[in-house]
Amino acid sequence: MIAEILATGEEIRSGALVDSNSAYIARKLEEAGIAVSRHTSVGDDMTALVAVLREIGERAHTAVVTGGLGPTEDDLSAAAAAKAAGVFLETHPRALEEIERFFENRRRLMSDSNKKQALLPKGSILLSNPIGSAPGFSLKIGRCTFFFLPGVPAEMKRMLEDHVLPRLTADASEHRSLCLTRTLSTFGLPEAAVGERLAGVAEHVPGVRLGLRAKFPEIQVKLYAYGRADQNLENALDEAAAVVAERLGKRVLSLEGHPMEQVVGRLLAEQNATLAVAESCTGGLISHRLTQVPGSSGYFLFSAVTYSNASKIAVLGVDPKTIERFGAVHEETAKAMAQGVRRIAGADWGLSTTGIAGPGGGTPEKPAGTVCIGLASEKGVFAKRLHFNFGSRRMHKAVFAQSAMDILRLTLLSGWPEK
Amino acid sequence: MIAEILATGEEIRSGALVDSNSAYIARKLEEAGIAVSRHTSVGDDMTALVAVLREIGERAHTAVVTGGLGPTEDDLSAAAAAKAAGVFLETHPRALEEIERFFENRRRLMSDSNKKQALLPKGSILLSNPIGSAPGFSLKIGRCTFFFLPGVPAEMKRMLEDHVLPRLTADASEHRSLCLTRTLSTFGLPEAAVGERLAGVAEHVPGVRLGLRAKFPEIQVKLYAYGRADQNLENALDEAAAVVAERLGKRVLSLEGHPMEQVVGRLLAEQNATLAVAESCTGGLISHRLTQVPGSSGYFLFSAVTYSNASKIAVLGVDPKTIERFGAVHEETAKAMAQGVRRIAGADWGLSTTGIAGPGGGTPEKPAGTVCIGLASEKGVFAKRLHFNFGSRRMHKAVFAQSAMDILRLTLLSGWPEK
Repeated sequence: MIAEILATGEEIRSGALVDSNSAYIARKLEEAGIAVSRHTSVGDDMTALVAVLREIGERAHTAVVTGGLGPTEDDLSAAAAAKAAGVFLETHPRALEEIERFFENRRRLMSDSNKKQALLPKGSILLSNPIGSAPGFSLKIGRCTFFFLPGVPAEMKRMLEDHVLPRLTADASEHRSLCLTRTLSTFGLPEAAVGERLAGVAEHVPGVRLGLRAKFPEIQVKLYAYGRADQNLENALDEAAAVVAERLGKRVLSLEGHPMEQVVGRLLAEQNATLAVAESCTGGLISHRLTQVPGSSGYFLFSAVTYSNASKIAVLGVDPKTIERFGAVHEETAKAMAQGVRRIAGADWGLSTTGIAGPGGGTPEKPAGTVCIGLASEKGVFAKRLHFNFGSRRMHKAVFAQSAMDILRLTLLSGWPEK
Repeated sequence: MIAEILATGEEIRSGALVDSNSAYIARKLEEAGIAVSRHTSVGDDMTALVAVLREIGERAHTAVVTGGLGPTEDDLSAAAAAKAAGVFLETHPRALEEIERFFENRRRLMSDSNKKQALLPKGSILLSNPIGSAPGFSLKIGRCTFFFLPGVPAEMKRMLEDHVLPRLTADASEHRSLCLTRTLSTFGLPEAAVGERLAGVAEHVPGVRLGLRAKFPEIQVKLYAYGRADQNLENALDEAAAVVAERLGKRVLSLEGHPMEQVVGRLLAEQNATLAVAESCTGGLISHRLTQVPGSSGYFLFSAVTYSNASKIAVLGVDPKTIERFGAVHEETAKAMAQGVRRIAGADWGLSTTGIAGPGGGTPEKPAGTVCIGLASEKGVFAKRLHFNFGSRRMHKAVFAQSAMDILRLTLLSGWPEK
C-alpha cells in the first residue's frame, strides 16, 4: 500500500510554521507497515488544493491530509475535496450534531460559521473529533482513499489513532509489510569514512537498508528493516547492528542512539567512579551535557569553568610558571587543570579542556579550533592536542566537548593508555 | 515568479526527522518577494526523485532542493538531476578542487567516495560550499532553474544566502512586493498574556502583521511588513516595534531577537563589569550560554558547577551550618554561593543557582521545579525563590538558567533593588 501525506495552510506554505504533523504521520504509517512515498504542502488556495488532491488520487492508495477544516473562509479542505472528487457539498447531520454537542459541553456559543464545518462532500464518511470542533472525514478521490484531519497536532494525533490507523490496518494480516528502524550513534570518523567502512553491509543482511545522518558532532547510522509482520525483523536489525558495530569498533557510542553524555554517565555509574571537570574553552558545555542526564548527581561532583588564567591558578592550583612557560593552551596546562580539579573535588577522574573556540584569540601556531584535553586519575595524567577547523565558535565548542568526553569514554572502556 | 521547495532523504520521508529546512527556505524566499507555491518531500529513491524533479520542472520557475549531496551511495541528487534533465554526469574540475581544498584545510584525508561529490550534471553551475565538503549546483530542468543545496542546515542557510537569494533577486525592480520581518524576544510573560497586551497593535500600524512564537523559554514577537520595495517598510517595522516595546516594557529582551546571553553580555561590557557564576541545578548551562557569545572572555571570569554539597563548601566557602540549617536549596545557600564565587573570582557580580531540576530529588515542600537564585555585588546580596512545573529536567534547567540571567539583566538595567 502506497501512502502520501498532504499538509495545507498558508503558515506552512510561507514557512511561518514548521510542519511537524507530516513527520509524525509518516512515522505512524511506516510503523504500521504502510510505505509513505511523498509529502506535499500547499497553501489555502482552491486551484492548488484541487490539483494536488487529483494528483495524489492518481498516484497513491491512501492519503492523510491535515488542515483546512476550521470555520473561517480560508478553510477550504472540504470544498476542494468535493471539487476534486466531482461531488457536491451537503450538511452531514451527524457532523452538525457533534459540533453542536462540542459547544454545549463547553458552554460556549456556537457561531454560524461553525455550521460550515458540517458541510462535507457527498459520500464522505464522518471521522469524529472528540477534542475539537472540527470533524474530519474520509473520501475516495480517484483510486485513493483520503483521510482529512484537523491541523491542530493534538486533534490530528488523536484522530489518526482513533480512525485512520485502525482502518488502514484492519485488513492487514501477519503478511502485511512493515518497517522497523534502529539508530546507532558514532563519533570520531567523518561521514564519508563511516560510509566506506559500512559499504556492502546491507547486502549481508537481507531486508535491511542503511542510512547515514550527520547530527553534529556525531554521525548516526540508521538501520531500516522492511518485511512482513511475521518475520523476525528485530533479529535482522540485531544482525545488522552487530555487523556495523564490528566494522566501526569503538567508534560506535551506542547501539541505541544514545548521546555521548549518557554513554559516559552509564560507564561512570557502572564503574562506581566519580568525575570532576575543568573547562576553559568549552565554557561549561561538558558540565551542562553531563547534567542533562537524570541521576548524574551520582557521579558528577564538580566543574570549574576557568575562563581566566587567574581562576586557573587560584581555583585549580595551576602553577603560574606552567602558564607562563607553555601558555594557557598547552598539554602541560591541560594536565595541571585535570589534576587540580580532580584533587579539589576528591573525584576518581579529572577531565580538562583548554583551547581556542574563536573567532578571535588564535595565533598561527595555535589557530582557532585548537584544543588541549587532559585526563587525570589515580594512575597519573595525560593530555592530547587536537585541531579542528569548523569556522564557528559554536561548532568548535561542541566538538571540543564531545572529544573530551570521548577520551574519557575510551579510557573507561579500554583502561589507561599504554606508555 | 513561482517557486517550489523539495526536501529529499529517507529520514524526512519516513518521518524520523522533521523537515525544518523547507520552512526556512520558504520564509527567506517569501521575504525576497518570491511566491512559494508548494513543498514536496521524497526519499532516496531514484524513480521518485526523477519523477518529482520533472514535475517541478513543468510547474515552477525556480526550485530549491535540499539533501542528497553527500558522499555515500544513497546520495542521489546529482544523478537524479542529470537523469531528469537528460544529460550526463561529469567531474566538475572546480568542484573537485574545492572538495580537495576542504580536506586539505582541515588536515583530513579525502576518501575516494568524496570524489563522487564532484560529479555534477553536465551544464551545472557550481555553488560553492564554504563550510562543508558537499558543493551545490544549479541546473535547468524543464522550464525551471533548480538550486541543489546540502541538507545540513548550517550549510544550506549559508549557501541560500550566498548563491540562491542574490541570483533570484538580481533582476527584481523597486516595484516588486516583499515582506520584511523583525523578531523581538521577550521573557517572563506567558504566551497568552503577551497576546493580550499586544491586542490591537496591528491596527495601529497599517501593513504590519503580528505573530507570536514560543521558543522556550522565550516568547518571540514576530512583525511582518508587506509592501513594495520602494515603500518604507523598515519605518513601519520600527513603529510597530516601538508600540510592542511600550506595551511589554522590560519584558522585552531585545528589539533584534537577540538571546538572553547576548543581551546580558552587552550590558556587562557596556558597564565594564565582570561576572562569576556558581551553578548547582543548572549544571553549567548558564556558563555555556554566556560563553557562546564571541568576546565573552572580556567579562566572564569563572564559574563553579558545584553539584555536590562538599564542593559548595570546599570551593565556594559556603558555611556547612548554612546548608545544615536551611538545606542546599534555599535563599540563604544561594546567597552564600553568589558571595563565595564573586569573592573567589574577584568579579563585580556573583550569580548563583541552587534547585531541583528533577525528575527525582523533590520533596512536598520543595518539589522538582524549585530554584533559588542569588545575586551578589559590592552593594550586598539578595536571593529569590521561584517555582516552575514543566515536568522535564531539560526544561527546568533551561528556565532556571534563563531566570537567573534575567535577574542579573534587570538589575543591570534598573540598579540594585529597593529595600
